[in-house]
Amino acid sequence: MHFEQRSVTCGALRPEHAGQQATLNGWVNARRDYGGIIFLDIRDRYGVTQAIVDLSHRPELDEYIRDVRSEFVIWVKGAVRLRENPNPKIPTGLIEILADEIGIINPAEVTPFEIVDDLGTNEELRLTYRYLDLRRPVLQKNFFVRSKLYQVVHRFFEEEGFIEIETPVLTKSTPEGARDFLVPSRNNKGRFYALPQSPQLFKQLLMVSGFDKYMQIVKCFRDEDLRADRQPEFTQIDVEMSFITQDDILDLTERFIRRAWKEILNIDVPVPFMRMPFAEAMEKYGSDKPDLRYGLELVNVTSVAGHTGFAVFADAIAAGNVVMALNAKGCGAFSRKQIDELTEHAKKYGAKGLPWLKVTGSEVTGSFVKTLTDEQRVSLLSSVDAADGDLLLFVPGEWERACTIAGAIRTEVARRTGIFDGVSGLYSFHWVTEFPLLEYNDEETRWIARHHPFTAPMIDDVSLLSTDPTHARAIAHDLVINGYEAAGGSVRIHLNSVQQTMFDLLGFAREDADAKFGFLLNALRFGAPPHGGIAFGFDRLVMLLCQTDNIRDVIAFPKTTSGLSLMDGCPSDVDEKQLVDLGIAIKRS
Amino acid sequence: MHFEQRSVTCGALRPEHAGQQATLNGWVNARRDYGGIIFLDIRDRYGVTQAIVDLSHRPELDEYIRDVRSEFVIWVKGAVRLRENPNPKIPTGLIEILADEIGIINPAEVTPFEIVDDLGTNEELRLTYRYLDLRRPVLQKNFFVRSKLYQVVHRFFEEEGFIEIETPVLTKSTPEGARDFLVPSRNNKGRFYALPQSPQLFKQLLMVSGFDKYMQIVKCFRDEDLRADRQPEFTQIDVEMSFITQDDILDLTERFIRRAWKEILNIDVPVPFMRMPFAEAMEKYGSDKPDLRYGLELVNVTSVAGHTGFAVFADAIAAGNVVMALNAKGCGAFSRKQIDELTEHAKKYGAKGLPWLKVTGSEVTGSFVKTLTDEQRVSLLSSVDAADGDLLLFVPGEWERACTIAGAIRTEVARRTGIFDGVSGLYSFHWVTEFPLLEYNDEETRWIARHHPFTAPMIDDVSLLSTDPTHARAIAHDLVINGYEAAGGSVRIHLNSVQQTMFDLLGFAREDADAKFGFLLNALRFGAPPHGGIAFGFDRLVMLLCQTDNIRDVIAFPKTTSGLSLMDGCPSDVDEKQLVDLGIAIKRS
Repeated sequence: MHFEQRSVTCGALRPEHAGQQATLNGWVNARRDYGGIIFLDIRDRYGVTQAIVDLSHRPELDEYIRDVRSEFVIWVKGAVRLRENPNPKIPTGLIEILADEIGIINPAEVTPFEIVDDLGTNEELRLTYRYLDLRRPVLQKNFFVRSKLYQVVHRFFEEEGFIEIETPVLTKSTPEGARDFLVPSRNNKGRFYALPQSPQLFKQLLMVSGFDKYMQIVKCFRDEDLRADRQPEFTQIDVEMSFITQDDILDLTERFIRRAWKEILNIDVPVPFMRMPFAEAMEKYGSDKPDLRYGLELVNVTSVAGHTGFAVFADAIAAGNVVMALNAKGCGAFSRKQIDELTEHAKKYGAKGLPWLKVTGSEVTGSFVKTLTDEQRVSLLSSVDAADGDLLLFVPGEWERACTIAGAIRTEVARRTGIFDGVSGLYSFHWVTEFPLLEYNDEETRWIARHHPFTAPMIDDVSLLSTDPTHARAIAHDLVINGYEAAGGSVRIHLNSVQQTMFDLLGFAREDADAKFGFLLNALRFGAPPHGGIAFGFDRLVMLLCQTDNIRDVIAFPKTTSGLSLMDGCPSDVDEKQLVDLGIAIKRS
Repeated sequence: MHFEQRSVTCGALRPEHAGQQATLNGWVNARRDYGGIIFLDIRDRYGVTQAIVDLSHRPELDEYIRDVRSEFVIWVKGAVRLRENPNPKIPTGLIEILADEIGIINPAEVTPFEIVDDLGTNEELRLTYRYLDLRRPVLQKNFFVRSKLYQVVHRFFEEEGFIEIETPVLTKSTPEGARDFLVPSRNNKGRFYALPQSPQLFKQLLMVSGFDKYMQIVKCFRDEDLRADRQPEFTQIDVEMSFITQDDILDLTERFIRRAWKEILNIDVPVPFMRMPFAEAMEKYGSDKPDLRYGLELVNVTSVAGHTGFAVFADAIAAGNVVMALNAKGCGAFSRKQIDELTEHAKKYGAKGLPWLKVTGSEVTGSFVKTLTDEQRVSLLSSVDAADGDLLLFVPGEWERACTIAGAIRTEVARRTGIFDGVSGLYSFHWVTEFPLLEYNDEETRWIARHHPFTAPMIDDVSLLSTDPTHARAIAHDLVINGYEAAGGSVRIHLNSVQQTMFDLLGFAREDADAKFGFLLNALRFGAPPHGGIAFGFDRLVMLLCQTDNIRDVIAFPKTTSGLSLMDGCPSDVDEKQLVDLGIAIKRS
């Protein structure tokens, strides 16, 4: 269909344009008829401009305008004039266009939901018609932020002397942790590529090549059962540097975050960020990515609890475990039902129960208060600084498990008491460092790398690898923003011998290590520089900048938690011929 | 191992730093021993600096330096001083560092090939040790160019008001043209994702969403049998715009290319580029992506050839075919053997033979000269402007086939005569437009889309869709640089009815069209703007900017033509458990 191209966008006209001719192209946002006068709000990415069709002025426009309704694509040409009833809330609200000519560019059927910001429609319908969902200005705004962040990233790292290099998407399957997505090879039947979980090894090899400072915004893939804030494909800002120490990586990151928050939100983020060892994060907040916008700190009350008559505590401590406590300040008014709900929440994380005490005036009640002597009760209360109106919750158990459960209760209490709502809009940035290098996997009866097998141990802890691997700490660092792991990285192993020791420790037979990672071990034999880096969760950064907790709000075409794209229906059946070409068959179990 | 971090890079020091202390980190590029004095060239990404270890000055350094050889990673600390024998060829050639302290950061075994620019080593060995290959400055330079091009792209399109949006990598399989790479779904067994051949449909949907101007640098995938200049994964700059005409796309592209060539090569590219209809490109150059750095134009001599007594010509013309001719100026001295080789070359493209004539003084010889009367000979020679010393080559056949064969001969003659070498270093930019919308596929006995099924027909040719589809032209455009298709695009169909007509014409049953492309057809029902775009082959642009014709020289970790990564050995076998999880089995035929 013929259309006259716009002379300006729908966000451009201002009072100073009054008297000029203009042509708009856009979507009909709203139509209002007043007798022979039709008001059309015309929308595009840049704004909304009001057009007036006055049939007494141009009766011949009736045939063009008659069928026009919301979401039709139209063109309108006419003179700009000041509005009689200006709308100062929008930048184009002081003017309108009096239509001399008008035409339909493309009609629209009635959309399955209205294109408005505050939409009650269920997400499935919105995802099915994602191209309409994405017309909503509130969602478009997120993608403008996302687009701006790409630019900040590219500029920042270029100015810092980084070189941008693409690594392959068709890579080798070396699952260690999450599952790989596989891609059958047609030319080499029976063999498979894998989609990368991260470009970790490639970026290390680029350091071996001498590229010195590398960055890339890159898609990564994990075939995990999806949680609400996960997607099978996600984007990361991948960074690696040579001849550096951990401080260099942390400094660079802080400069980048400061720049991003300043350019996008005009917020001055104070640097340097606090650095908190993993052990402290767990003990105080029960998480390796604690939300520090609020306090509500945990207390390790093992030494005090050990002296009480409560058998649950005594048994735990006898078994070498700990007792963690949370003083839910002012929650003494929680009902029995509310406490039961907290207990159920704790059980999801593996608690057997949730012993509690309540302080009401001078009275102390609770699930195990009868087991306590007066003295024991006083010292237990004093250990968590309890006062009138407080609710005390206790988690006995193995240290990391007990911390994690208590941390989950901390978050839940913050949610239920409004603490969480009270801090929305704030940002808290800090580092977690000194992670354990390894953890023992009972199922596989072997050590596995907590971060990944290429992470360097702290210099002081190298000797622990042979004597006490549990307590060896890694030169690793996670950037935590508002309780999200926004970035994570480490200094890497650059010595062939240390890498080989690590593989040995992880129980890789030499030949397995060679088959999987031989190219890395080889590379470390030919002059590898000391190196390390970090990877930022790009989607997470955008979520944080946009203040949304739904990751699908910042991804143009997301998958559901079951990995489906509701819009196009993928994954889908494929032709038998495609499978024959690839030398694979579907095997129903 | 302990190392002292660099105070400067190996490219930083100049005469004005003489007298200062400096610490370098880097690779030993060369070691030369002169008695108790050792010269070490230390290399990093930024340059090479000479360090001197004078054992009479520092005898204690002997133990650190004794084993150091090429590619060791070392640190050196000492005073900067002016060289006695300066090397003005490199920026750091006027100074050196007299080592006070030195240490090995990481030793290196003897590398399988030398790290030098002019390397005779076979490419397989280089790809196996890609991380060493990438140390060669000549190769590193390509990646600096590549990195710079990313930056130019991001800045240019941001300034032009484009928004950068990522589209999915796990998409729906809709093969139409090349084969898809498939990804089995674990959560939905028996169903598959496909890696995108391009984000075509997604970018169109983003236009339907109203994003107006979209761009993305994106990986795309085609499971084709690879040719020398193809890779299974490749990078494109993907661009789409709304409310535009073809001119808008071409103008934008020309501004971008001008900017890229200026910023990277400091070359002023003249715009606008010539626009050549497909038919003209084929008739004059026998290619839809002709190299216009040199002439050597073809001539359609059908009308003259039809009046000769040469039966091959007469038969061709009687069958409705044509006779294309190439005047290989000055190639009259080609031997019979050389002409036979050209004939063999023509046969690769489907020729049955390669009739020829030679002009030597007043004498004309050739494979069919005896069938010609004097008059016929004169008019045939005059039709191709033949002169003394020329070789004339003739290709009878179906128009497009004959043009293509003649075009291949044109290129081969340019290669053999040095014309090709003579134009290396030059750039030629032009458009090919007015492509046929469709071509008939004899194998599938149906029309297929020449570009893709979403390309709009030229307004004047819409009526031909029902009467004479062969002659319907598309609003499509290819940017050709030095004979490479550097970019290609089109205006798209934005009307549901036209898209439906196109699917009908391509022989898609309605239900098939709905199953595959229903979401697009739906989207076109809800107010789609007129839109179009272009996609640039990013790897090709880098090749052109770097003046290399090996695509593997501009991709950090490329695959071989059989799709292998020699470095890490992918594609590889995977664990049976991974296949069981995915519900697939390997089926050996």
